[in-house]
Amino acid sequence: MTQATLSPTSRTSATFKNLQCKECGAEYEPKATHVCEFCFGPLEVAYDYNELRRQVTRETIKSGPNSIWRYRAFLPVTSENPIDVGTGMTPLVKSNRLARRLGLKNLYIKNDAVNMPTLSFKDRVVSVALTRARELGFSTVSCASTGNLANSTAAIAAHAGLDCCVFIPADLEAGKVLGTLIYNPTVMAVEGNYDQVNRLCCEVANTHGWGFVNINLRPYYSEGSKTLGFEVAEQLGWELPDHIVAPLASGSLYTKIYKGFQEFIKVGLVDEKAVRFSGAQAQGCSPIAQAYQDGRDFITPVKPSTIAKSIAIGNPADGVYALEIAHKTGGSIESVTDAEIIDGMKLLAETEGIFTETAGGTTIAVLKKLVEAGKIDPEEKTVVFITGNGLKTQEAVQGYIGEPFTIEAKLDSFERALERSRTLGRLEWQQVLV
Amino acid sequence: MTQATLSPTSRTSATFKNLQCKECGAEYEPKATHVCEFCFGPLEVAYDYNELRRQVTRETIKSGPNSIWRYRAFLPVTSENPIDVGTGMTPLVKSNRLARRLGLKNLYIKNDAVNMPTLSFKDRVVSVALTRARELGFSTVSCASTGNLANSTAAIAAHAGLDCCVFIPADLEAGKVLGTLIYNPTVMAVEGNYDQVNRLCCEVANTHGWGFVNINLRPYYSEGSKTLGFEVAEQLGWELPDHIVAPLASGSLYTKIYKGFQEFIKVGLVDEKAVRFSGAQAQGCSPIAQAYQDGRDFITPVKPSTIAKSIAIGNPADGVYALEIAHKTGGSIESVTDAEIIDGMKLLAETEGIFTETAGGTTIAVLKKLVEAGKIDPEEKTVVFITGNGLKTQEAVQGYIGEPFTIEAKLDSFERALERSRTLGRLEWQQVLV
Repeated sequence: MTQATLSPTSRTSATFKNLQCKECGAEYEPKATHVCEFCFGPLEVAYDYNELRRQVTRETIKSGPNSIWRYRAFLPVTSENPIDVGTGMTPLVKSNRLARRLGLKNLYIKNDAVNMPTLSFKDRVVSVALTRARELGFSTVSCASTGNLANSTAAIAAHAGLDCCVFIPADLEAGKVLGTLIYNPTVMAVEGNYDQVNRLCCEVANTHGWGFVNINLRPYYSEGSKTLGFEVAEQLGWELPDHIVAPLASGSLYTKIYKGFQEFIKVGLVDEKAVRFSGAQAQGCSPIAQAYQDGRDFITPVKPSTIAKSIAIGNPADGVYALEIAHKTGGSIESVTDAEIIDGMKLLAETEGIFTETAGGTTIAVLKKLVEAGKIDPEEKTVVFITGNGLKTQEAVQGYIGEPFTIEAKLDSFERALERSRTLGRLEWQQVLV
Repeated sequence: MTQATLSPTSRTSATFKNLQCKECGAEYEPKATHVCEFCFGPLEVAYDYNELRRQVTRETIKSGPNSIWRYRAFLPVTSENPIDVGTGMTPLVKSNRLARRLGLKNLYIKNDAVNMPTLSFKDRVVSVALTRARELGFSTVSCASTGNLANSTAAIAAHAGLDCCVFIPADLEAGKVLGTLIYNPTVMAVEGNYDQVNRLCCEVANTHGWGFVNINLRPYYSEGSKTLGFEVAEQLGWELPDHIVAPLASGSLYTKIYKGFQEFIKVGLVDEKAVRFSGAQAQGCSPIAQAYQDGRDFITPVKPSTIAKSIAIGNPADGVYALEIAHKTGGSIESVTDAEIIDGMKLLAETEGIFTETAGGTTIAVLKKLVEAGKIDPEEKTVVFITGNGLKTQEAVQGYIGEPFTIEAKLDSFERALERSRTLGRLEWQQVLV
């Protein structure tokens, strides 16, 4: 289905007005478009904040569904029945054991490793993008993905009965490929890295008129990430934290959490507060962290080489905006090695019982690094964002978590193994966690 | 820590009274014990239903936490602060596309594939068991597991800071072993099937005085499954369904869903209603289904051989009680082949966007079989229970879900693949789904 036929369905809601260029402010009808025709800046959704202030209260939000759709007035959709598969309202866990281990007093973990339906924050952006795709009349949806987005687009498209074709780099983790194929979309494994996949998808979007959630639907899609900011504010009792640490891939998640906080302040749902924004990248793909360390205000693209594939974007679309926020809020952007990433995954699992993927390991490792560098005050109310599930990147920790003790079904065989484990088992871990 | 020291902590709550033998009714102090000393019957938790009727209303439940602990008065714990990691209140999905495919009008899917924290219904029973273990003074917790229970016990013990030693059959799926090791418990891989693992654990429980969630803590543990029944009733608007289909392993889940419904009727939270209870087993381990087909009221143990390892219990502890409920309610107990199980997993994924493990595939395949046999009325309000996540049993579907189309990062390479996929891609599926 092509753009020409879409006009009638591209109406807006009382609160969601139009698209606007983030650079020159030019306004656009809210169709499937994402780049300014004049200055080539990215388009963003504009809202009527006076209308939002009139419509929305803490009570109207609380009385909404237990999903991202309780914040519907802040999202760029017009449907009365958006696609709701229970996405969002994931736990904000007050950390005890990890906080103690790191010497922090006020640490919270926002856990999207158990987000519904496909166990990553991508379910938020996809629920919004496919709802908007349906409103715009698309029957085929697509995406350029590092894995989690493919899982989410395929699953939610299956639920909604939309045709789906996803594009992934050919070298993705097995769990992410299988976790996409199971929903029976068409899967294109592209020989190249994410940035090459992304370029190909831009061409396909133009030639086939499909709804690419993170290309021609990107202005709507990216708004879904604001709900992570909204939920944290609500779950903290309608208050903003002092400091957040989030992973950086394209930089979109990080900038949208910031936008979410700003919108809640703007409409009076929370008090104004200066929140420090820190970001996490893998050393094997750290263009934003490198620019931050060098004090540059521009990104130099890199060729990714890290186990943290879900955040391995060498040419991050929103990198410069992320840099700007880190500087403006007094946060830091750090990177960590693949070994530190694995330790981060294990540290979170053994202290909090949360099994995250490599991106989450990156964020925990950076959190640890920032604490050790004195860049996080132990008293600060700090929220760390865990964005995906470890069952999808099993090969990353395979071989680093020890082995079970294989025993016969006999008591004496067990007793011998127990003796071995009491020494050996723990020692293994010390090496990794010190 | 041994039983002798536990008495002071083994007090009860206003609603939870003591333990009672399910066979002879003998009463016991609510300690870590599970078998009647007189008749060797299983012990079950007894409640004061008049007190429950006085204390609990729909409103008091609704105002509780968004987890299983909103039903705390119906659970065998005394702590003011039970271990709450967000377990329970998983989505009850009104099925559209699967229902249409099967010709049903009123199908609901209770989706514990996204239960927190470890993506199976076991998080319910473990949250209750470890809360009670803590009350009884245990510092080391353990379990005999087919995989999901090991994941859950290790994760929630890590969160609660309890020492943990889990026992699994040595031939478990890689995802379940790794999904346990990551939390750093001691893992014993026993050369033998689950029933041999279970026998060994009974010996260890006696010699080490550990809290085995599904052995000496079983009366408390198993009560956690009632919350699946409670949630379905609440999520249906305080009404019971007409028919449920649940997987059968030990038979505990199935019998506890029944107990949950009965308790809600008893205290007046829902109206009395006859609910048909149907059960699902894998043909490679179907002692309960076989007894049902033969019209026997006793179970003949079998040696398991199926891909549905999480429900492969050859000597099911609650098998006879499950049989009794199926007969009494006019339900059926069916079994399906491993091939049908894989088709069930794929059918649920491509119609609803839910990726379940082999146990869920078994339940969906049995649902399909019951519909085709005319044993489910299309109008009946039917709830099917999905109990675990497909990312943990990836090898089961590996090789049955097709492959991605590997392409170069060029438009023409994509176009050629798209042509192939339009024919080939779909055909592959037809073979599987007809």
